[in-house]
Parts: sequence; structure tokens; C-alpha cells
Amino acid sequence: MKTLKLRKVAIDTYKENVAYLHRNCPLYRSEGFQALNKIEITNGIDTTPVIAVLNIVDDEKIIATDELGLSEQTFSQFKGVENCTVHVNHATPPSSLRLVHKKIAGNRLGKNDFLNICEDIVNNRYSKIEITAFLVGCAEGGLERDEILYLTEAMVETGKILDWGEPMVVDKHCIGGIPGNRTTMLIVPIVAAHGMLMPKTSSRAITSPSGTADTMEVLAKVNLKQEDLGTIVQLQRGFIAWGGTANLAPVDDILISVERPLALDSKGQMIASILSKKIAAGATHLLIDIPVGPTAKVQTQHDALKLRKLFEYIGDQTNLELEVIITDGRQPIGNGIGPTLEARDVLQVLHNEPNAPVDLKEKSLQMAGRILEFDPDVRGGQGYYLARDLLESGRALKKMEDIIMLQGKHHTSFKTAQFQYQVLAPESGYVNSINNLQIAHIARMAGAPMDKNAGIDLHIKLNDKVNVNDALYTINAEFNADFQFAKTSAQKNSGYTIGGKQ
Amino acid sequence: MKTLKLRKVAIDTYKENVAYLHRNCPLYRSEGFQALNKIEITNGIDTTPVIAVLNIVDDEKIIATDELGLSEQTFSQFKGVENCTVHVNHATPPSSLRLVHKKIAGNRLGKNDFLNICEDIVNNRYSKIEITAFLVGCAEGGLERDEILYLTEAMVETGKILDWGEPMVVDKHCIGGIPGNRTTMLIVPIVAAHGMLMPKTSSRAITSPSGTADTMEVLAKVNLKQEDLGTIVQLQRGFIAWGGTANLAPVDDILISVERPLALDSKGQMIASILSKKIAAGATHLLIDIPVGPTAKVQTQHDALKLRKLFEYIGDQTNLELEVIITDGRQPIGNGIGPTLEARDVLQVLHNEPNAPVDLKEKSLQMAGRILEFDPDVRGGQGYYLARDLLESGRALKKMEDIIMLQGKHHTSFKTAQFQYQVLAPESGYVNSINNLQIAHIARMAGAPMDKNAGIDLHIKLNDKVNVNDALYTINAEFNADFQFAKTSAQKNSGYTIGGKQ
Repeated sequence: MKTLKLRKVAIDTYKENVAYLHRNCPLYRSEGFQALNKIEITNGIDTTPVIAVLNIVDDEKIIATDELGLSEQTFSQFKGVENCTVHVNHATPPSSLRLVHKKIAGNRLGKNDFLNICEDIVNNRYSKIEITAFLVGCAEGGLERDEILYLTEAMVETGKILDWGEPMVVDKHCIGGIPGNRTTMLIVPIVAAHGMLMPKTSSRAITSPSGTADTMEVLAKVNLKQEDLGTIVQLQRGFIAWGGTANLAPVDDILISVERPLALDSKGQMIASILSKKIAAGATHLLIDIPVGPTAKVQTQHDALKLRKLFEYIGDQTNLELEVIITDGRQPIGNGIGPTLEARDVLQVLHNEPNAPVDLKEKSLQMAGRILEFDPDVRGGQGYYLARDLLESGRALKKMEDIIMLQGKHHTSFKTAQFQYQVLAPESGYVNSINNLQIAHIARMAGAPMDKNAGIDLHIKLNDKVNVNDALYTINAEFNADFQFAKTSAQKNSGYTIGGKQ
Repeated sequence: MKTLKLRKVAIDTYKENVAYLHRNCPLYRSEGFQALNKIEITNGIDTTPVIAVLNIVDDEKIIATDELGLSEQTFSQFKGVENCTVHVNHATPPSSLRLVHKKIAGNRLGKNDFLNICEDIVNNRYSKIEITAFLVGCAEGGLERDEILYLTEAMVETGKILDWGEPMVVDKHCIGGIPGNRTTMLIVPIVAAHGMLMPKTSSRAITSPSGTADTMEVLAKVNLKQEDLGTIVQLQRGFIAWGGTANLAPVDDILISVERPLALDSKGQMIASILSKKIAAGATHLLIDIPVGPTAKVQTQHDALKLRKLFEYIGDQTNLELEVIITDGRQPIGNGIGPTLEARDVLQVLHNEPNAPVDLKEKSLQMAGRILEFDPDVRGGQGYYLARDLLESGRALKKMEDIIMLQGKHHTSFKTAQFQYQVLAPESGYVNSINNLQIAHIARMAGAPMDKNAGIDLHIKLNDKVNVNDALYTINAEFNADFQFAKTSAQKNSGYTIGGKQ
């Protein structure tokens, strides 16, 4: 066991622990350390080591020869201050890695196996390549449905679990990939106005033009403390906040940091990811929306059905009351795409304005209706009508205003973006298809979600009749460079195909 | 496309490309970059981008807000100088990644598929996690034998191929895992003394107490330029050099940098790795040694046979004349373990000293005999006797001395190591087993291969009779700390089991 002085290196290595050692450090050659080796670091008192991947440094300004550097995330896990003495050793592979080898060899793993793996992952004992090995072993039908169940449970158990102290806590989740699909911001006020508990945490956009948290942020603060959320939910029965800071199913975040760049098709992993987060967030009743369409995440009815069965199975085994609806994912929902434009759509529906987007309103009512029917007092089939009544009577709007006030209202002037460009129909005919991916891409190029006002405003939807030079949509941008990129991209491929009546 | 100023960051990230961006760099948020994203960097003239994984920096001493940093390896691939203007963009995944997804899904890949993947890997378009995905997809019987062939060919074709200008170039390879097994240093002088061409490149130890290159380095320089190797081989028909710098099957080195820490059991990958290196090194005739034993890499005769068939199949398809021998891998070969001690064994055999280790001599003669029989003029079955004659007549020694002289003789005084400790037999009986792994571990703890004189000297071998307190072996170390570690480890587990006659 050899000692060095601890130093924090101000490099953000995200979900991977990295340590830095100078090439002329006496330990480097004598210990046979090599770049990308895994080492374990202890403070000599605490018995649990921090594990990190080694990078070798040739610049004493970054790290001196008697120092060991830790990246920001790694430093924060280590019980020690700068300049304290640290002990460094070769790390032994995490003991659960043999289970990963078993999985790769095609064996079935049990409940405890998944728990061991998740415990090692959550304690940062896995490097990125070890996590990849686990994910690839689980990908493409590598998990049987019981294994998906075990993985879900293991991800829940290796994190915090929220308890709202009530027998019924409802939630919803959409499989995603549909721009503009801001049903959550209508469902929460409708359901909470009925008195059901819906503490909704949402995500920010990562690859999409806006996440629910980004859009809600146009209207209110979304970065709230757990204790404030508890107060809001007591008073209003619901909120719409960003879920990023709670330590719920933390293994999921680590797995996703590797899975996303790989674009792995791992159904089992996706189901475990969604359900573990919901269970950890304290949900007892969950509605899942699977949109199907050629440019949606799920492309065929057959795939959607298979997915539904798996969700139902895991739901039943974990005592989560779970319903799945399969919806039309052939085009964006609503007109606005990008935070401010989507918030505008939501307010139009809540205010029952005549020009409010009908598809957003109808989909939200259908989904809210299904959630309302979780209430034993609501008669089967009556949820939709109840939801419509809650919306059209203005009670949902009132509830939303109260929630916004408690979360912290943002005063938004829905002003026009700095730069605007209309994309025109190149010919007359009917809109035969709208490509969700291309529309999302153009909206992101225009600056969404970073620039709240940036995005796309759709004027024409699927199956609409258009004349040549009718405006299909307007691109909104705040900066000229972004504006030009988005314009060029739309000119190359508008995302719309126009043809005969279908 | 946005521009930044290029800076070299003196961090060694080994086989992974890493780029550094300051968190306050205007590009960071506006482009939606995130730590661990892959970006592509161009100089605006050259069309081929360099791909790197992004780390985010919070310290302007490491990287300023208008700069893009590249790690040492990445910088060396980039056509540009410090402070030049670079263009940065999100990297699209390498096009061959869809083939990796196909492989993971259980599909068979063709020759061109493996070539596409290897081309992307050799051009650093794969991140570590993408390489892991490929390896895991190929692991545990994931490759059929034709796929192993395609992968071998693709790894050869994506690197340099040496041509020695002769119809017969012989080589040997041992599957490894047996400490002390320095047959190469006897086979090369014997075979070269017969006049056959044997340009032998060897590896340094990575996890073992010594590689052939480490042991040869005790006697001569091993880090030689390709042109010098050409001269030596013309004059002496053979050499024993370090193979690390030639650009032979470079994909293999990249794959191994990921495979090793994962400890993946990937037979197909191992075969492709060995054969691609040999074919690229210009070998036409190859002898492969598969030692079998409970603590060897291959543990059963059955596994060894399966491996032999695969080697033979790929050899035949690639016009490599290939022979496989299955040998006794139940214990170390020779007495010395560690560079200097092994070099001493080799010299004892070459000098025909009476106390030379018999097992090392016999195994080397057997293997050299098989290689000599590749010569059409050598009668079948006579190779062993020819090899023995070449050794015992002193011609092999003369050849070795000539080779050492040309490579650059190192004047070694075979002096005793600073610290020595004898491990004694705890009881009387017969040696029932010797654990290769534990013996290798203790030798490494003692300082091998970094300290040339460190290691283990075996006095008693398998099936030998011992009395209580007889010395089983002596630990040699140059530094007290290493010495204590090795001693403690040997006291805990000597690696020897002693029992009744078997």
C-alpha cells in the first residue's frame, strides 16, 4: 500500500470515476499501473475504497508527482480533503462481474444476482466498459421477463424510495419520441382537481426539443426541494417538477449514461428503467402511453403489444396498478414544439380557447380519464367525461394556477422570437406524413430547449389539404446562427410529404 | 460548425480519444454538449475528422473557454498545431455500429462487415463502450469459425504486413499462463542455427512476472528499428525483439486494451488476435503451444482440442502452415521466474550445464524439432534429434551470442537480489500441485518484471519428494516493501500442496 497527496482535478467525467497520476510518480512504474487501469483509493481509515479508472498525466500543473488527482465526481465520493494522504492500490474487479460473464454466456440470473450487480454499480465499482458488458449481455432479448422483474426490483432497492403516506399515488409515463406531446401539463391539473394525488416529476430534454420540465419551467420554477414538494402536494394534490435531483433508482441513471450513446435496443432495460423510477417515486397506479408510428420509438402495433404485456407482467408482480394505452404516434401532438410554444398550447387548452390544439386536448382527456378511473368511485367508462367536465368548467385551470403559484410563478411574456421563417408547401395536395425525427431535429437546431422561445409552430397536420405555398410551419429562433442552421435543414428536408388523398 | 483554438492537454488516455472543453465555453450549452458525448474535430481543410469523447473542465489552467483540448494520443492524430482553429461538431455514430447491433442480435456477419468494423476501429471512430459492445457480441461462442476467419483477415488487412522476401518464415506462439516458460529463447537460436528464418517479435509482461521481451532484455537490447531487424535477420537468420512498435494488426491492440480489464472469455477473439499478429508479421509456418493444466489458461484436454481445431481451420484458410502441440501446463517451466532468473536458466541450457533445468530444455527441443520439420529436407520424426544436436554441439549457443551481439549486448552481472527469503515445506511428502497463478502473483509482488532481478527461484517441482523445512523456492526482491508483500503472500499461500505419493 503506497501513499500520495490528494488533489481535486476540475474535470467533469460525468458518471465515470477517473483518477490522475503523473507519469513520473514513483508509484506509476513500480506498481505496474497503466492508463485505463482501475485503482482503488482509500483514506487509510474508511474501509470502503473509491474505485477509479486511471489517466496518466505529463503536466505538473495538472498533477504533481507526489499527488493523486480525482475528477470532480470522484473527489465528491471520497471521504477526504485536498492534501490529505491517500492509499492507492490495483483494484480487483467487482465480485459481481462473474455474474455479468454468466449473463453474457446466456445464463439466467436470479433476484440476488441482479441485486449484487446493482449494488456494485451504485457504489461506482463498475467502469464504463463493465457497464457496457452488462448492458450488451441484457440487450436484444437477453432478459427473460422474470429477469426484467428482478432488475426492476434491484434498481428500486439500491436507491431511495419516496413515501407520500397515502394508499393511492397516481403517475403517468409516455414512451416518448413524439414532439409537442405535453399531456402531463393538462393531466396533472385535471386529476389533482378531482382530488387524486399526482406528485409528478418529469425530465428535461436530452435529445428532444423539450421535456415536460423544460416546458413547465416557462410557467413556474421546477427545481424544487423534496420538502417543498411535500408541502405543495398536501395543499394542491399535485405538482409538475424536475425529477433530476432525487436519488431514485440511481443505477438507472448510470446505465443510461452508457446506453444512450450506444443506441442499444434493449427492451428489458427500458422497462426496468421506467418502472423502477416510478416505483421509487412512490407511485401505486400508473398509466403508460405507447405511441406507435413510423417515426415514433415503437413502430408497429405488434411491438407495442409485446411491450404492453411485459409492462403488465412486471406491474402485477410489483403490486403496481398499471394500465397501458397504445396511441397514434404518426405525427407531433399539439402545434408548438419547443418550451414556450408548447406552454402556449397548454394554456390555450386550459383556457378553453377556440383555437387550442384539438389533438393535445383530446389525448389529454383520454389519458386523464383513464387515470380518474383508478378511483373506485368513478364508474367505468365515465373517466373521459369527468375529465372533460373538470377541464371545460375551468377547475383544471384554477388548479394549474394554484400549483404554479406554489411552485413559484415565472412571469412569461409570450413574445415572438427574434427570427422567424415560414416553411411553405412545395405543391398542392394532402399531407401524407410528418417525420417526428426531422421536426424535432429542426426545432433543436433552432435552439430548443436552451432558448425557451425557439422551436417550431405547426400550422398544418397529417391528412390536411394544402395549396402550393401554404405555410406548413414557422421556425422560431433567438440567434441568427441557429436560425440559419434550422432554415437550411428545413430547406433540405421539411419533414412533410405531400401527395394524393389517402 | 463552431470554431475553437486547439490545445494539447498532457494527459495520457491510452487507446481512447478524449477531448476537453471548459464548462463556460459558449459552445458547451448552445450545442447541447455533455460530458462523455462523442464529438468530431476537424481543421477545416482535412475532411476526415478526429473523433473523441468529451470531458468537461472547470479549471482555466487546464483549458480556457475559447479552447478545445485534446489528450496526447488524440492530439497526435490531429493534423494541426497548438492554437490553430478547429471546428467541433457532434459526432455521428460510426456507420459500422449497426453491424455490431446485428451481431448482438445474434446474426452472422460477413467478411466485409468485419472489415468495416475494423476500419472504423483503427481510425479511432469507436469509443471504449462501442468496442466493448462489439467484444461482448463476439464473446462466449458468439463467433462461428468462418467469422473468426473474417475477423482475423480484417485485422491483418487494416494494418501493415511485413514481407521478409523468403518463401518460409517460421514462428511460434504459446497460449500463455505458464511462469518461466522461456522456450523462445532456445528455439530461435536452434532453428536459426539450422538456417531457417525466424524473425521473432515477442511481448513484454502485462499481467505475468516476465514476457520473453523482458527476459531477452536482460541479455540484449530488444527495442529495435524495423531496418535494423532486417539487417540482423539477413546476417543471422533470427532475432528476439520486442514487437510493440510495429503497426501490425493495430485493431488487435485496441481490442485488447478493452478486453483485458473485462477478463472476457472470448475464444474467437483470442484466435483472431494471435493469428492476425503472426500473419501480419510475415509468418508462413507457425507452431502453437497449448499448455493444459488446472491453473493454466486452458484447463482441460477437451478445451485444448477444440481450440486446436479452430486454429487449424483458420490456418488452412489463410495459407498459414500451422501445427499445434498440447503440452503439460500443470506447473512452471524451468526454475527461474522473473527476467534475470529466467535468462540464467536459458544460458544454463545453452551452455549445456549439468544443473540446467531439464523441463525447459526438453520442451524447447521438442518444439524446435517440430519447427525444424517444416523444412522439407528434414526427415519426419528427426527434428528433435537435429535440435538436440544443434544445442549440445554448442552451435545454438554460438548463434545466440551472435544475435545478442547484433541486437546490442547488455552486460549482466547475475548478482544475487538485495532481499531473499526461502519458502519451506510445512511437512514431509510429495508435491501434489503447484499453482501457476499464485507463483506468478508472488513473483510480481516481489517486483518482477520491473526489477529485473526480482522473482522466484524454484528448487522443488511437481511430484518431487520433500522433507519438512526443505526449501520449496526462494523469493528475490530489490526493495524491502515489495519483499514484505511477496513474503506475506507466500506465507498465506505458498502455491504448493504437499501430500501422499500420487
